[in-house]
Amino acid sequence: MTVPDRSPETQGQSSPARPLSNRNMRMASTFTSRIHGPIMLRKVEAGEQGMAKWQQTRSFWTWGWQADEPSDADRRRAAAAVSQRLGKPVTPPPIPAIDAIRLRPSRVTVPAALGGFVSTDHTERVLHTWGGHPLELLSAIRGDFPQPPDAVAHPTSDAELEAVLAWCDSHGHTVIPYGGGTTVVWGVRIPEHVDSAVTIDMDRFHRVLEVDTTSRAARIQAGVFGPDLEAHLKPMNLTLRHFPQSFPWSTVGGWVATRSGGHYATNHTHIDDFVESTRMLTPRGWWESRRLPGSGAGPSPDRLVIGSEGILGIITECWLRLQKRPTFRATAGVIYPDWLSGADAARRIVQAKLWPANLRLLDPVEAKNAGLDGRQSLLIIGFESADFPQGALMREAVTLARDAGGRIDDIDILIDDGQGRPTGRGGAVGAWRDAFIGVNAGATNGLGLLADTFETAVTWDRFAEFDAQVRAALTDVLRRECGDGWSLSCRFTHVYPDGPAPYYSFSGIARPGGEHQQWQAIKDVANDVVVRAGGTVTHHHSVGRMHRPGYDRQRPDLFARSLAAVKREVDPNGLMNPGVLIG
Amino acid sequence: MTVPDRSPETQGQSSPARPLSNRNMRMASTFTSRIHGPIMLRKVEAGEQGMAKWQQTRSFWTWGWQADEPSDADRRRAAAAVSQRLGKPVTPPPIPAIDAIRLRPSRVTVPAALGGFVSTDHTERVLHTWGGHPLELLSAIRGDFPQPPDAVAHPTSDAELEAVLAWCDSHGHTVIPYGGGTTVVWGVRIPEHVDSAVTIDMDRFHRVLEVDTTSRAARIQAGVFGPDLEAHLKPMNLTLRHFPQSFPWSTVGGWVATRSGGHYATNHTHIDDFVESTRMLTPRGWWESRRLPGSGAGPSPDRLVIGSEGILGIITECWLRLQKRPTFRATAGVIYPDWLSGADAARRIVQAKLWPANLRLLDPVEAKNAGLDGRQSLLIIGFESADFPQGALMREAVTLARDAGGRIDDIDILIDDGQGRPTGRGGAVGAWRDAFIGVNAGATNGLGLLADTFETAVTWDRFAEFDAQVRAALTDVLRRECGDGWSLSCRFTHVYPDGPAPYYSFSGIARPGGEHQQWQAIKDVANDVVVRAGGTVTHHHSVGRMHRPGYDRQRPDLFARSLAAVKREVDPNGLMNPGVLIG
Repeated sequence: MTVPDRSPETQGQSSPARPLSNRNMRMASTFTSRIHGPIMLRKVEAGEQGMAKWQQTRSFWTWGWQADEPSDADRRRAAAAVSQRLGKPVTPPPIPAIDAIRLRPSRVTVPAALGGFVSTDHTERVLHTWGGHPLELLSAIRGDFPQPPDAVAHPTSDAELEAVLAWCDSHGHTVIPYGGGTTVVWGVRIPEHVDSAVTIDMDRFHRVLEVDTTSRAARIQAGVFGPDLEAHLKPMNLTLRHFPQSFPWSTVGGWVATRSGGHYATNHTHIDDFVESTRMLTPRGWWESRRLPGSGAGPSPDRLVIGSEGILGIITECWLRLQKRPTFRATAGVIYPDWLSGADAARRIVQAKLWPANLRLLDPVEAKNAGLDGRQSLLIIGFESADFPQGALMREAVTLARDAGGRIDDIDILIDDGQGRPTGRGGAVGAWRDAFIGVNAGATNGLGLLADTFETAVTWDRFAEFDAQVRAALTDVLRRECGDGWSLSCRFTHVYPDGPAPYYSFSGIARPGGEHQQWQAIKDVANDVVVRAGGTVTHHHSVGRMHRPGYDRQRPDLFARSLAAVKREVDPNGLMNPGVLIG
Repeated sequence: MTVPDRSPETQGQSSPARPLSNRNMRMASTFTSRIHGPIMLRKVEAGEQGMAKWQQTRSFWTWGWQADEPSDADRRRAAAAVSQRLGKPVTPPPIPAIDAIRLRPSRVTVPAALGGFVSTDHTERVLHTWGGHPLELLSAIRGDFPQPPDAVAHPTSDAELEAVLAWCDSHGHTVIPYGGGTTVVWGVRIPEHVDSAVTIDMDRFHRVLEVDTTSRAARIQAGVFGPDLEAHLKPMNLTLRHFPQSFPWSTVGGWVATRSGGHYATNHTHIDDFVESTRMLTPRGWWESRRLPGSGAGPSPDRLVIGSEGILGIITECWLRLQKRPTFRATAGVIYPDWLSGADAARRIVQAKLWPANLRLLDPVEAKNAGLDGRQSLLIIGFESADFPQGALMREAVTLARDAGGRIDDIDILIDDGQGRPTGRGGAVGAWRDAFIGVNAGATNGLGLLADTFETAVTWDRFAEFDAQVRAALTDVLRRECGDGWSLSCRFTHVYPDGPAPYYSFSGIARPGGEHQQWQAIKDVANDVVVRAGGTVTHHHSVGRMHRPGYDRQRPDLFARSLAAVKREVDPNGLMNPGVLIG
């Protein structure tokens, strides 16, 4: 079994197969790199060769599988680096033994008929208590599991899924749909107020059911993990090419339920654009749309499923549009004297509709990881195609990039016309890439750093003012909450003709024991300023329970009432993921 | 005032400003051209210079304005041509005087406070009785107006719109939202079973409120007609570039409500893709979304408005994404020995993600208008850009087109690198274009022809079988209903990586007085076979009341129930356009 060799942050590179946990990498490295450069850890292999992802065991204290957990030596190395930064000795906290974690007793009795795939097993409940948000991983490493699910289901068929949902519906058990558990917005957390809750883990819906090589689409079960999907498609020379940062550990169903953002920085950015049809089980039955390349027949049924985050039902399968695997590539890193001139270049390129696969702009803080001087911005441009050389498009993009004040030597424009020549390893692009490889959130979990990200999108006319407001508000709250040594940076992960999707990262020194309050104070400011200044509370991390304060101000009230009306129709007892999006 | 010089069917050409009514052109010409070649009529000018579209008076018996009505001489010429075909003398029917048309008395009393913009005026009621479907125009020319609205409103402000909607809500008057009235799916027809109905014509919402030249987007009122919008944008070197065939007479609000299909044959095909935000008044208040270039915050509120066809509320304005006006163009017409090899070429090109603006395939019947031999298909490829020469992309497309068995000489690949050289006038492309210019449905209205179209989309793996089934079923019913002399043809109006959007045209000899039954028998077959063979009942004409039999089989039942639940929430008294989509 192989894993794909591209992640959204390393497009255009011919790296060896390896899982990339860029989100966690960045979370750790953005902070530490200001002082020490990135913490380099051992390369984590994606589990055993030949073992599919769905067969592996999840880690409860880092994003990923147990095979992704850093070693004790890795953690001690990370602690030494953080010690230097904090000016005091830091020791990695002990990892609790799963069996020693205390859980409240299960509040449900699993009927014998469901016993084969629904369990109240201690380990199962531990592994499904938290999602992947840093505060959740911090709680986990401290052995804090106050709200575990009362049971965990792993249905293997429609019949089993129907049975467990019917049981929950008739007994009033809250249902938490669960894909890969990588949510960073508290999407799989058991609400405090419910009397009982069952998490339905879809990992046994792990098959690619059909591949239509003519239309380039596949019928994929919801529990298929990213690497398993790509491994299935590779022999057919096809790829979904949707690489959210959670890719190694997240599922197709999770991507569709949360409108995940993927590999492509322009044009078709969200999974939304690749959905041909959906199939979802609600408490009131099946919701299944027709495979259509396009349609104008009423409001799109799929667009109500996409982004529904488990409040209407459980997605069981989708037809998704595929790509032929690219062979032609071109990459360029263009240097700008400052952040806003880089933004202007990104705007010009995306508005010219050249549709590069990559168009990522790093602000001066992030560009330092690429060896720039702390004032300069780096615009990474990447083109790719399975069908034709990309040099001509790249030359047009570079012309626009230079017109906007960017600097790149011709020799640094890397073109691969199908010979497999690496295009992403040299110069500033390669330096930036290298800075992010091999870092793992588990290594710094519990070491006293507070780090998180938030992402948004805003129209170009507002961007400069928006960015200034966000930075001012975050700087203020970070200074107040974290004292010295905080960090704030931004990059564009996706760019649209009418505006960018800026992705902000922040970190600072945690107050031991006060991390949750400290983080909440920062997040409240972020939610508020993003929505107040005209952005969306989330571009691709979804709403979950975390973004509700911003989301509730952002969406039309009548839309929320409409969504609630839909929920009453398909989930009249209100079982499905309560507290997410509405309610 | 000028009108734009492009329509969806004539992309890539530098024609003088003129309105193009291609749908009607085709309806007439497809039938007649089999025997006589197209009927060429005088060029219709788009009303008086300096007069905006919203200031003009609608025709009640042809698509468009009174200025679009053919002259008596035009009609006599058309009748002479049809006479030859039918083998018997045909005379154009008289056009009834509006004042002589009999209407049932209005069943509403307009409150004095609304008297300034709501009226029961005879002419107003006549002009808003029918949409633009051929059977509706036939009824109109015969003076048959059994279901007129009881009053027609032309609100000029939010306050007036709120007032008329509140009046309807409190008095139980059915509301028919009305944009340009060009619907070919009976979308503005007054249902027979309602006690009273008020048509709300949005033509006084006729302003472009803001243009954001940085983000390339504009805030546009719903009643803005296509040509007025383009005239407003042209001095800024911007364009929406959305040219449905109804373009000269349809409105922004209508496009969004019906998910209209536009200029671009690939990539961003529907108006959906250009909507940045929407504003809609429902009986329970305003629904207004935020301008966002992209978002992942829950299901898209806009996607529930887009395609809602007036059943939830009245769209009052939208932010729409704009383009810079293209200057670089490339056009090629590639000839295939048959229909399916042309389809295969279209698939290869769209799957290579070259994203041509035009990629329209004509079947052998339609390609005869371009001078081909009746067995060959014509694939028209067009690229355009405001920013860079399109020759390189065209050469890639032509390579793929030739690989698929297509024939084009290098000299026939027309490239305009910004010098304004015409690229769409020569060869087969120009011949096809010429065959469609200057024909007007009004000229053949009532002459004894039965003509209509239906469009769909289907995945590539099913296309050949789908097309065969559609042709077999339609041939059978056309032969049965129309005897000899029927015509059936197809082209692709839009093409997706996972499937084409075929657009079928049929015509035959009408049974005088029996046209409605005859047409219904044909349409029943079309609705059935399209949905049974795996397509969508409509790709861009919308559902309205006409497509309900197919739509009701196509959409998920739970989605229809969900849509009804949303409607109960925002329109609890069920006023809004009943019978469309649901109910």
